[in-house]
Order: sequence, then C-alpha cells, then structure tokens
Amino acid sequence: MNPSDSSNDPTEISTQQHRHSLDPHVGRYAARTKGMTASEVRALFAVASRPEVVSLAGGMPNLAALPIDSLSEQVASLVSNDGLVALQYGSAQGVPELREQICDVMALEGIQAHPDDVVVTVGSQMGLDMVTRVFCDPGDVVLAEGPSYVGALSSFSAYQANVVHVAMDDDGLQPAALREAIETAHRHGQRVKFLYTIPNFHNPAGVTLAVSRRAEVLEICAEHGIMVLEDNPYGLLGFNGQTYPSLRTQDPNNVVYLGSFSKTFASGLRVGWVLAPHAVREKLVLAAESATLCPPTFNQMLVSRYLATHDWQGQIKKFRENYRERRDAMLSALEQYMPAGCSWTKPDGGFYVWLTAPEGVDTKAMLPRAVTARVAYASGTGFYADQLGSRQMRLSYCYPTPERIQEGVRRLSGVLTDELELYNTFGPAAQRTISGPQAPSPDTA
Amino acid sequence: MNPSDSSNDPTEISTQQHRHSLDPHVGRYAARTKGMTASEVRALFAVASRPEVVSLAGGMPNLAALPIDSLSEQVASLVSNDGLVALQYGSAQGVPELREQICDVMALEGIQAHPDDVVVTVGSQMGLDMVTRVFCDPGDVVLAEGPSYVGALSSFSAYQANVVHVAMDDDGLQPAALREAIETAHRHGQRVKFLYTIPNFHNPAGVTLAVSRRAEVLEICAEHGIMVLEDNPYGLLGFNGQTYPSLRTQDPNNVVYLGSFSKTFASGLRVGWVLAPHAVREKLVLAAESATLCPPTFNQMLVSRYLATHDWQGQIKKFRENYRERRDAMLSALEQYMPAGCSWTKPDGGFYVWLTAPEGVDTKAMLPRAVTARVAYASGTGFYADQLGSRQMRLSYCYPTPERIQEGVRRLSGVLTDELELYNTFGPAAQRTISGPQAPSPDTA
Repeated sequence: MNPSDSSNDPTEISTQQHRHSLDPHVGRYAARTKGMTASEVRALFAVASRPEVVSLAGGMPNLAALPIDSLSEQVASLVSNDGLVALQYGSAQGVPELREQICDVMALEGIQAHPDDVVVTVGSQMGLDMVTRVFCDPGDVVLAEGPSYVGALSSFSAYQANVVHVAMDDDGLQPAALREAIETAHRHGQRVKFLYTIPNFHNPAGVTLAVSRRAEVLEICAEHGIMVLEDNPYGLLGFNGQTYPSLRTQDPNNVVYLGSFSKTFASGLRVGWVLAPHAVREKLVLAAESATLCPPTFNQMLVSRYLATHDWQGQIKKFRENYRERRDAMLSALEQYMPAGCSWTKPDGGFYVWLTAPEGVDTKAMLPRAVTARVAYASGTGFYADQLGSRQMRLSYCYPTPERIQEGVRRLSGVLTDELELYNTFGPAAQRTISGPQAPSPDTA
Repeated sequence: MNPSDSSNDPTEISTQQHRHSLDPHVGRYAARTKGMTASEVRALFAVASRPEVVSLAGGMPNLAALPIDSLSEQVASLVSNDGLVALQYGSAQGVPELREQICDVMALEGIQAHPDDVVVTVGSQMGLDMVTRVFCDPGDVVLAEGPSYVGALSSFSAYQANVVHVAMDDDGLQPAALREAIETAHRHGQRVKFLYTIPNFHNPAGVTLAVSRRAEVLEICAEHGIMVLEDNPYGLLGFNGQTYPSLRTQDPNNVVYLGSFSKTFASGLRVGWVLAPHAVREKLVLAAESATLCPPTFNQMLVSRYLATHDWQGQIKKFRENYRERRDAMLSALEQYMPAGCSWTKPDGGFYVWLTAPEGVDTKAMLPRAVTARVAYASGTGFYADQLGSRQMRLSYCYPTPERIQEGVRRLSGVLTDELELYNTFGPAAQRTISGPQAPSPDTA
C-alpha cells in the first residue's frame, strides 16, 4: 500500500523525470497547501511495514475476530435482494435505517438522539473535516488536547485553523489549563471556535477524561461561548465493559459528537457519523454534499444489515477482550524491559500507550535506529501542532499478537538503552536528518 | 431518502422545537458557511420523487442492466477470500491494482498514464473538492462553462472561489469567450486558478467540445498560465461508441483529469479518481488523507474484481444502448410536443438535454406547477453561479423508461403552453416565492 510502490521501476523514465523536475504548478497552490509536505518519516513506514519489523506504530484495528463467513453471505444477499438500491446514489445525509440504528449504538453511552440529527460520513475523519469546514475560517483557534489525534490536526491545518494545545494528565484534559488557554486566546483577540476532545481512551495519550471533570469542561466551554467537538471512536472498547457518560448527554445543544464503525466493526467500509444540534446538522449535510455528494450507499446498507442481523454487541465484546489481552502484554513487557526513567500511561480501553522517555532521547531522531532494530513506533511530535513531543512516542497494541508485542517492546527497550548510554557518555545527540511536520500516517499505517 | 423524512412525526416534539429556535451557533460559522442554505426547491424534490411524478430532474444512472447475480457471487468471494484486507484501512492514494486498471480504462480515450499518478477518490465529487482544496484561496477565480455542473459549483463555493462562466454553443466552450474571460479577470487583478470543463456530453448542456477546438482551449490556458481541470464522467457513453480525444492526452503537464465509475459501473460505491501531474498528485494525496484518511478499501477491491472478471466494456455498451434509446425517446417527444419557440440541445452521449424556453418563462417559478402536473425537471439557475439560466432547464433521460420520458415531456409541454398563454395574455408573471441558491440536488435526486 505504499503510494510510491511502482515508481522504482527503472523502465518508468517519464514518471521519474517529472518527479525530479521543478513543479510548474508551484505558484498556483492555495495558501493552505503550503503546509502539505510529504513526511520523510512516512517513507520509513514503508520499511516499517516489512514483516520482520514489529510495528507498534499504526492504528489498524484487529479484524481477525470478524464473522467472515456470515458477512460473506450477508453481502451476497444485499446485492441479490437490494443491489439496485445499494449500488445507486443515496442522500447526502445517509440511509435513514442506518441513522436509526446509530441512535441505538449511541444509546449504549447514554445518548438520546434523533436520527434526523445524524449525518453519516465517510469515516469520522470526514466528520472532522466537515465540522472544521463549517466552523473554521483561517486563523481561528481550535483547542485540542496535547497530544492530539494526528488526523484531526491535519484537518484543522487544511482549513488554516490554529491549534492551541491544552495540557492533560492521567485524568485527561485539565480544566484549569482549558480555562487558561481560552482566556489567553481571547486576550490576544483570537476567535476560539471549538474544543476538540477525545474523552475516552485517548489517541494517542491512552487516558480517559475523569467523570468528575466532565461537567466542568462543558461549563467552561459554555461559559466562554465555545462549542465542544467530542470524538469518540473507542468509547465501547473499555476493557471491563465500562462506558463513560458522553459529553453530548450533558450538553446536547453545545456538543457535536463524532462516532465511527471503524473500531467496532470494519474500518475499510469507512462509515462514521456526526450527531449535531439541528441547525449545525443542516450545514453539515450541505457541506458533505459538496465534498462527496453522498456516502457510499452500499457500505451503509451493509453496516445496517450487520447491525440488524448480527450480535454486534457480542462482537464488540470479542474485540475488547482481544485488545485487553494485547494491552496486558504491552504493559507487562514495558514493566519487564523498559530502562529506568521511562514512564507510560495505563489505558483501560482503546488502542494506545503514550510513553515518555528520559531526557536525552529524541524519538523522531531515534526512529530509523528503531526500525533497523526491527521495531517501529509513532514519534510524539506528530501529535502536536507545535513541535512538542520529542521525548514521547505512541505505542499501539491493537494489531500485533501478544508475543509480537512483547518482542517489539524488548527490541525497543534495547534501542532506548543504547540511546541513553550514548547520551550519558557523549551528551546530546547531534541533530539528525529525519524531519517532517506530520510524522505518522494517521492510523492507517 | 428525504433527509427530513422522520421530522414530520408529531411525537418528535423536541426536534421540532429546536428546529424553530434561534441557532445558538449562528455567530460561530466560517465565512464559507454563510452561502450554505437549504434550497426550498430541494423540498420540492421530495414531492418530485413520488411515483406518479415523472422525474426528468435527477442524474441517477440506470443500473437495471447490471449483472446482479454475478456481482453477488463476486462480492461474497471478496469477503470470504480477502475480507480482512477489504474491511481494513488502506492507503490514502488507493489500492494499487485498481489504479493500474484505471489506467486501462483511461487508455480507451487515448490517455497514457502511470498508476502512480492516479489518486482514488470517494466519487469524482471528492476529486473536485480535493483539487479545489489544493488550488483555491478565497477570491480566486475558477472558469467554468455556463451552465456548469451544480456539484462543482458547490465545491468551488465551499472554498470561496469566484466562478466566472464562459459561454458555450453547440460545439461546447467558445475559445474566444475563454480568452476574453481570462483577460478580463487578469485586467481586474484576479488570480485565475483553473478552467473547469466537462468536454464530453456536458452536464447539464448535453453538448461536446468540438475536437477542432480542443488544442486551442489548451493553448489559451497554457499561454495564460492556467491549469485545466477536465471532468469526464460520461466520456465512454457516446451513443455510437465514439470517444473524443481527452484534453489530458494533449497537455499532460497542465491538465488534471477527473474520472468516475458512477456512470459506467455503480454510483453507490462512490469510486472515482484524479489523474494529476506528479507534484500535484502528491498534494492531492495529502489533502485526501486529511479529508477521509482513505477511500473505502472494500469498494475499491470490488471495482477491481469487477474489472478483472467481467466484460466491463460490454457492460458499458449495454448502458449506452440503454441511454441512447432514452435519448431518442426524449428528442422525438420534444419534437412532437414542445410549443413553438422552445429549443434544445441534441446530445450524442451522456444523460442530459438542455432546453431553452421562450421569453416569458421562468423555469424556477414554473417548477411547482410542473410538479403539480406530475413532471419534474432541474431549473436552469442552479447551474450558474450568477443567477443566469432562468429560461433554461435540464432534462435528464437517464433513468425513466422511454414511455415515461415521452409522457413526462408531454406533461411538460402542457405546462409550458399554459405558461406562455398566461404570459401572452397578462404579461410577465409576478415574482414567485420559490427561491434558493442551489436549486437541484447534484445528480443524486
């Protein structure tokens, strides 16, 4: 799946030639496009995807537990019985039956919603993009946890919004830091459009917003006239089957909620949704229509049938048991192998551990050496809009087997130990050559 | 598929209530969002979709000729054999095998391209949106035929580009008008980013850019440093099996090309593509990643299997014979029924006839009466950014049966005749109440 996979063919001279020529369009791009540069680290991901490398870098859900045989029958019957509808255009808002079922899914986290306020999107990434399209002018401020989801940062950047990070701790977003960030922005005359937050099993931080903080976060935003964008792809993947009260339940008129079937069913179908107050929903539908006309009808009807005919809650239970086993493997390997001075979060759901290395480690500069040692991770700077995160890394336990996770952590600890020895002997490492503003590929690598 | 279908339920008091309340977010929207208002005409489309109304309004392809049984087997085998790949995230650029096959499809129109320069998108609407995202700052000018595709106008509007229309005749875009439009814009200090053109079987105009004009159009653009965005969803639907030389073949470095499987296979899968010069392609991949992460893997693999295992060219031949029969039915009904003073284009491919009514007819104001007479069309103003087109309408022959098309045209001629009689007796009609900036739903109604 490397985008450049075919360009190394030496017979493709013409392609190679214009790759090296000056881009004749360079003066024509929009201002927003200046920030879009391919990351060198991304090239490393191609190497990292080789089978001998244990990748703790990506965010691919582990689909092995899916009921493939019955899905195969289901999809065949969808085409046979409803093919002419499933293969045809639909409405920009999405298939009505699916929007009803989405309300049932959200009810598991206490959300009472009407299908009319749900907009189906091409994954919740498109939801993020549409909300930003509807709300953000260039220069507007978006508040986001620091660190935050890399795909969200790239959508905000596409609309030239300025991200201001808000500090987190083991209980998630810190309300005092939120208040301060808003007040500082307002003092500087900046327009703060919304707080983007992943309250449950945060990507990449692996922490959850304490229930005791939720009302306060909502109050601070409401008080300052700031909308809340709640992104909740992992909410049903709490390892004890626990769920947390959605922010949407507590302030329905000031929260726009993003949901997704990528982690609870199948990411390759790209079916997510936005639940929004009615007036915002109308804008989102028009924005979505200009973006893709309509989400794929086929995919929506397939998800709808899956929800109607499978024990989807039982399936989610299987997924979360699977992820819990992997989380356990990662945490016990970290305990066993990591050198002194490393610390990490202990997620009780979701896909990720956020690790902080001792002073002297630059995780971006270290990544090539880690890949040489056959382990990959996502370095921390990619999850900040402001170049913080150089001592941090995101470790994903979602995809590899527990044995591979353990081996990956063992290799990583060797790399870190060597790095620290060098630092302690020779002082700070010289600046390394790897750089790039958006280190990891968002969750698809 | 009416987005509001569930809101008429009188038990849904809370939804009804906040529908009528002041939008608390109204001060928070981006400047681009101001232009997004729901059209009253769109509400009419809900009525127009009732079975007793002959809809000549939408652009839904007629899928009845699809080989449903073998597609059903194919999709079952895709899930059984490759489900864990098909249901998983893929690359933002798209599945490599499909990108190779897309090059084979484009070769039918003389295009020589490398799969590395193809980006798969969620329908070519997303391609349009991504190209606009990469090139257009607010206030930039996009040139487009007048009339132009309503979905393109709505993407340009989302990025706050200004559309300048270029006149057409039966041979398509007029080169002299193009030159004049560019020079006028430049004289006013405007930045013209690209010419958006549908050279073949134009939507909505139903005309084709004469082969003799193509080099000149490209030369004018190249000379003035303007990129060409060639949108070609209908190119393989020429009724005599004819194809026209793609603009892309004649100036590969200055043309970005949009293709789609919506009209040659299945619109509900939302699989389209962009072919772009290499440097532009890199920007498009990054833009697409911020918009949807990746197009649905499942849909791409399904299209790829379809192309690999079916006689897809034979299938396209079936589609175009089907559309030719419908085009014939529409043209002969127009000849038979239309009142004097009406004129219309005679398409040799694609989905649409563009009809001009005599003076005194306002097609937008007349639409409610047409729907009452059980026929619907798309009024002309929706296809212009500047409110022209009030005497025009788009008539689609793609979806209804030939008998229904004939009956629809008969009804429409009755409405037009009545309208002209009123005008001739009483003078111009008073301003009607129906209004809305984006009259028809783009091709999905």
